[in-house]
Amino acid sequence: MSLVVIGSVAFDGIETPFGKVDKIIGGSGTYISFSSSYFTKSVKLVGVVGDDFPQEKIDLLNRHGVSTEGLQIKAGQKSFFWQGKYHLDLNSRDTLVTELNVLADFDPIIPESYQDCEYLILGNLTPVIQQTVINRLRKRPKLIVMDTMNFWMEVAMDDLRQTLKMVDVLSVNDEEARQLSGEYSLVKAAKKIHEMGPKYLIIKKGEHGALLFHNNEIFFAPALPLEDVFDPTGAGDTFAGGFIGYLAKTGDISFENMKTALIYGSAMASICVTKFGPDALESLTQDQINERIQEFVDLVQFEISLP
Amino acid sequence: MSLVVIGSVAFDGIETPFGKVDKIIGGSGTYISFSSSYFTKSVKLVGVVGDDFPQEKIDLLNRHGVSTEGLQIKAGQKSFFWQGKYHLDLNSRDTLVTELNVLADFDPIIPESYQDCEYLILGNLTPVIQQTVINRLRKRPKLIVMDTMNFWMEVAMDDLRQTLKMVDVLSVNDEEARQLSGEYSLVKAAKKIHEMGPKYLIIKKGEHGALLFHNNEIFFAPALPLEDVFDPTGAGDTFAGGFIGYLAKTGDISFENMKTALIYGSAMASICVTKFGPDALESLTQDQINERIQEFVDLVQFEISLP
Repeated sequence: MSLVVIGSVAFDGIETPFGKVDKIIGGSGTYISFSSSYFTKSVKLVGVVGDDFPQEKIDLLNRHGVSTEGLQIKAGQKSFFWQGKYHLDLNSRDTLVTELNVLADFDPIIPESYQDCEYLILGNLTPVIQQTVINRLRKRPKLIVMDTMNFWMEVAMDDLRQTLKMVDVLSVNDEEARQLSGEYSLVKAAKKIHEMGPKYLIIKKGEHGALLFHNNEIFFAPALPLEDVFDPTGAGDTFAGGFIGYLAKTGDISFENMKTALIYGSAMASICVTKFGPDALESLTQDQINERIQEFVDLVQFEISLP
Repeated sequence: MSLVVIGSVAFDGIETPFGKVDKIIGGSGTYISFSSSYFTKSVKLVGVVGDDFPQEKIDLLNRHGVSTEGLQIKAGQKSFFWQGKYHLDLNSRDTLVTELNVLADFDPIIPESYQDCEYLILGNLTPVIQQTVINRLRKRPKLIVMDTMNFWMEVAMDDLRQTLKMVDVLSVNDEEARQLSGEYSLVKAAKKIHEMGPKYLIIKKGEHGALLFHNNEIFFAPALPLEDVFDPTGAGDTFAGGFIGYLAKTGDISFENMKTALIYGSAMASICVTKFGPDALESLTQDQINERIQEFVDLVQFEISLP
């Protein structure tokens, strides 16, 4: 059994109202791997970096139990770089720089040792690459989770539609769900997106929490109100990593267990945003995660006995 | 024991993306009274209308168990009128017309039969009128809940500060909490607002739910994701009415019981928005309310056993 993660492994330049870092490691594959590694030690990463990517961070991933056999290192090339600036509300941001570099012609390689993949999470990349990874796995995983973004809806909608048919869970934010479905109401949007393929839909609403839709059932996981959010970069990927990590750990992909997985994902995201980049995810203890989970329990639990 | 409600009793003209009504009854006092009447039959309304206000709606309030002895009817004068148009997201709206009419020189009268007031809710009105009502009650109620809006922060901040010192619970929306405190983070805003007087703070976030703050504790009540929201007018007042109605019914003003009260308030609000004006609140059954409550339980309950 293993959890295969595909996503970008990259550098980010980040400016928020609370500070600025010129260059810090990031990328969906990085955040998902760190986050899920707190739940299962069989995380296997597929991605590509240039030889400018620090070996010590690859070593750190390995110490977290993440296999990087599927992480290609391209000699003489540069890693993907994104630079952005967040607005005061931290819900919106401007992209200042996007340098594809090694991602421009990324051809994912699935090592033989990854063929035991039972849980697959496709971090945000082109829908074609996401599809390629599914096709290169000899056995269809038990669960495929896919993240995407509005950009692909604009430039690669046909590819995106095809990939959507191949996955079980789609994870998008509220604006993306509206754009993908053409519906303003998220309940109506969920129905249309279910028809496109994914039986489960997660709609992330940032500081307003996340919704999980399946058939006519809805579950809501709140976000933890925080005194200070330093950097929301990677929060959605960290959330997804906690979600699939918990499912892989428990081996239970029922809707009921997905609810709990969503709370774990939210807890991991709420930790991620307290520091820049993935810093807060690099050395967590089980006690710290449990404490955060307890805060979620306290936040939403209430007593009602209906007559 | 009684629950005294003060607020506007009025006409609204409402346009939403789903329809338009030129004139329908509304006002904070109306919504709070209808909503709380499903929990306790000792609701007593303080307000003022012109003789254009339909007697049948006053009779309807009475049949709901709401005393209107404190509702002044001004012969030859017109009721307060508000007209507004909602944007597509229903979270923002433009006010097109405000006619104060009888509200311009409203002097609240507290009938002798209202002096047994144990629960007082001050719907949105000038802070001076809200204060006057508190001062005209011979005995300080067990719990005073106050609603207000950004308009008073702009034109009557000193009065507002004084009134805030006299109440237990303040109910505002997220933008109002930010404006009142000067803090963007709602957790920080809550701390500052606590210092202004209210020991309990409710921050309403519309479709994103509501937060209850007390000391360092936070509780979150979600909003129910709905397929169609027809008209959000009065949702906040309906919410407040369910909240205080449940507290009055149970006689328990502990933080734990306030959590449950918040869920009841959210349930009532989620019903209110499915029809224009207060239509959906006029003839509910206990079963309908219980069904809605069950939807909230299903929406947020999850199983976690921490090691």
